[in-house]
Amino acid sequence: MTETVALREVGMRDGLQNIRQFMPTERKQAWCAAEVAAGMREMEVGSLVPPKLIPQFADAEQVIGFALKQPGLKVNALIPNLKGAERGVALGVHQLNYVLSVSEGHNRSNVRRSTQESIDDFKRIVALRDAQPKERRPTLGCGLATSFGCTIEGAVDEKRVLAIAEQILSAGVDELMVADTVGYADPAQVRRVFTQVLRLAGKVPVAAHFHNTRGLGLANVLAALEVGVRRFDACLGGMGGCPYAPGATGNVVMEDTVFMLQQMGFSTGVDLPALLLVRKQVEADLPGVAFHGDVARAGLPKTWRGNLAAAAE
Amino acid sequence: MTETVALREVGMRDGLQNIRQFMPTERKQAWCAAEVAAGMREMEVGSLVPPKLIPQFADAEQVIGFALKQPGLKVNALIPNLKGAERGVALGVHQLNYVLSVSEGHNRSNVRRSTQESIDDFKRIVALRDAQPKERRPTLGCGLATSFGCTIEGAVDEKRVLAIAEQILSAGVDELMVADTVGYADPAQVRRVFTQVLRLAGKVPVAAHFHNTRGLGLANVLAALEVGVRRFDACLGGMGGCPYAPGATGNVVMEDTVFMLQQMGFSTGVDLPALLLVRKQVEADLPGVAFHGDVARAGLPKTWRGNLAAAAE
Repeated sequence: MTETVALREVGMRDGLQNIRQFMPTERKQAWCAAEVAAGMREMEVGSLVPPKLIPQFADAEQVIGFALKQPGLKVNALIPNLKGAERGVALGVHQLNYVLSVSEGHNRSNVRRSTQESIDDFKRIVALRDAQPKERRPTLGCGLATSFGCTIEGAVDEKRVLAIAEQILSAGVDELMVADTVGYADPAQVRRVFTQVLRLAGKVPVAAHFHNTRGLGLANVLAALEVGVRRFDACLGGMGGCPYAPGATGNVVMEDTVFMLQQMGFSTGVDLPALLLVRKQVEADLPGVAFHGDVARAGLPKTWRGNLAAAAE
Repeated sequence: MTETVALREVGMRDGLQNIRQFMPTERKQAWCAAEVAAGMREMEVGSLVPPKLIPQFADAEQVIGFALKQPGLKVNALIPNLKGAERGVALGVHQLNYVLSVSEGHNRSNVRRSTQESIDDFKRIVALRDAQPKERRPTLGCGLATSFGCTIEGAVDEKRVLAIAEQILSAGVDELMVADTVGYADPAQVRRVFTQVLRLAGKVPVAAHFHNTRGLGLANVLAALEVGVRRFDACLGGMGGCPYAPGATGNVVMEDTVFMLQQMGFSTGVDLPALLLVRKQVEADLPGVAFHGDVARAGLPKTWRGNLAAAAE
């Protein structure tokens, strides 16, 4: 039996939020459609922040509306607060992803309030979710940013990660995303943190969200995989990072992640040759943006196994 | 207790052999001295091939002579055949590394003979080693190239890797290097192969030699580490790869490898900030050559642990 690993493309949110040039709405939609056609089943397609804050997401409504029409796609959107959640509910987004920082300093600099205030805000969003009629009730994810360290505070206490995870779980979250926002995680730490979070979470799905800032992205995916994580965020071309730091990488590269998982014998549902064509399309649509990843450059090996589940079907 | 991982810098051999511009002898020596000063204890500093074949190594004698004067450095050189071994013995190189390909097709294209003929040649080199007086007897390594796949033959049978490893071990090798020459390995395969090779090898040291061609270099290091490998080859700036394939990467990046290992709590003896300065020096000495690696670009995190063994001393 082939075991499945669930991948979520976050490039249209985490990648694009760091890119200053506005990607035309129609090209965002083309990206979404092409990646769904390549087998991607879950995408975070934008952020429901005020357009003034991040102009890239001024067209979030149109992009989300388009994404909701893609067959078999679970549409995610990031929400910064209750107002974003209300917008997401009105649009019928399948999953709304709230984010708070485990590091107090990072949370304050990001959203100008304490982590505890963010947790309280999350509880109000849970109440909003629960007030929806069942047929249009979204699932609610919560990202724990800076779970592996923080550029402001440095080390982040693993006990604090667990304590916050516990509060979010009790509040009624549908999925936890444990995130190495700044690329500080190492595989030993990843194993420790995810072992404990998975134990706490029980049946609530736990995803890993890694950045490849210091080259350990896939090693961290492997470490999380080993302790039982079966959900990962990744980004086409490893886009993102800071637009002011030339060459800085963003999320773990989706193409390389699919390659590693499928060569290891996991099924991801993704057709990698097709995904590499999506990459070319998006790269052409974003001139000047650095695309990362090694499989796109080196090509598939002669030993390429392909999508085992698809082959078995 | 901090556990130690042994690293061997192979950039002066595996990196330079793919670079067409001749690096001046004095700059090669400067690289060697600087990296030893940064804590590197083992380096493969050249290849004892006929200079006509690889002009980059025309100055191998002078580079090796210099390296042998570096305090605490175990000097390695690659040897393609018995003649190379004789040169190495005459020079007093500490370790001579022979290479053969597990893939028959790769071996034939590389050295124009069968793998079995290469194994027989290795036995003659063992006899040469054994004929040396003890005080100037080198240790003898043997690299098993294409152990994880081959660009000519595709898949390589794991049973064949083990059968060849067994022959080389019985012949009397001092170290086995199991190599993913073409960047085909995945972490599941790495675990399987190294688990079996380590069992076969018993007390004979086994090193892993990975290329980062498809981005899995550090994930493969992690996988090997998990099954007990404690010796790794890596290369400053991930140099190497094919000079005709722009952007192709070579060996696993030394700086990122040191970063991962030390963050995980292993000691490597290497002072990473000093190593990053060596990288700058060598990069300046090789204009136009692509240097890879993410730590050099992103910098060390606030949570950088440093060299734990050095700190404890």
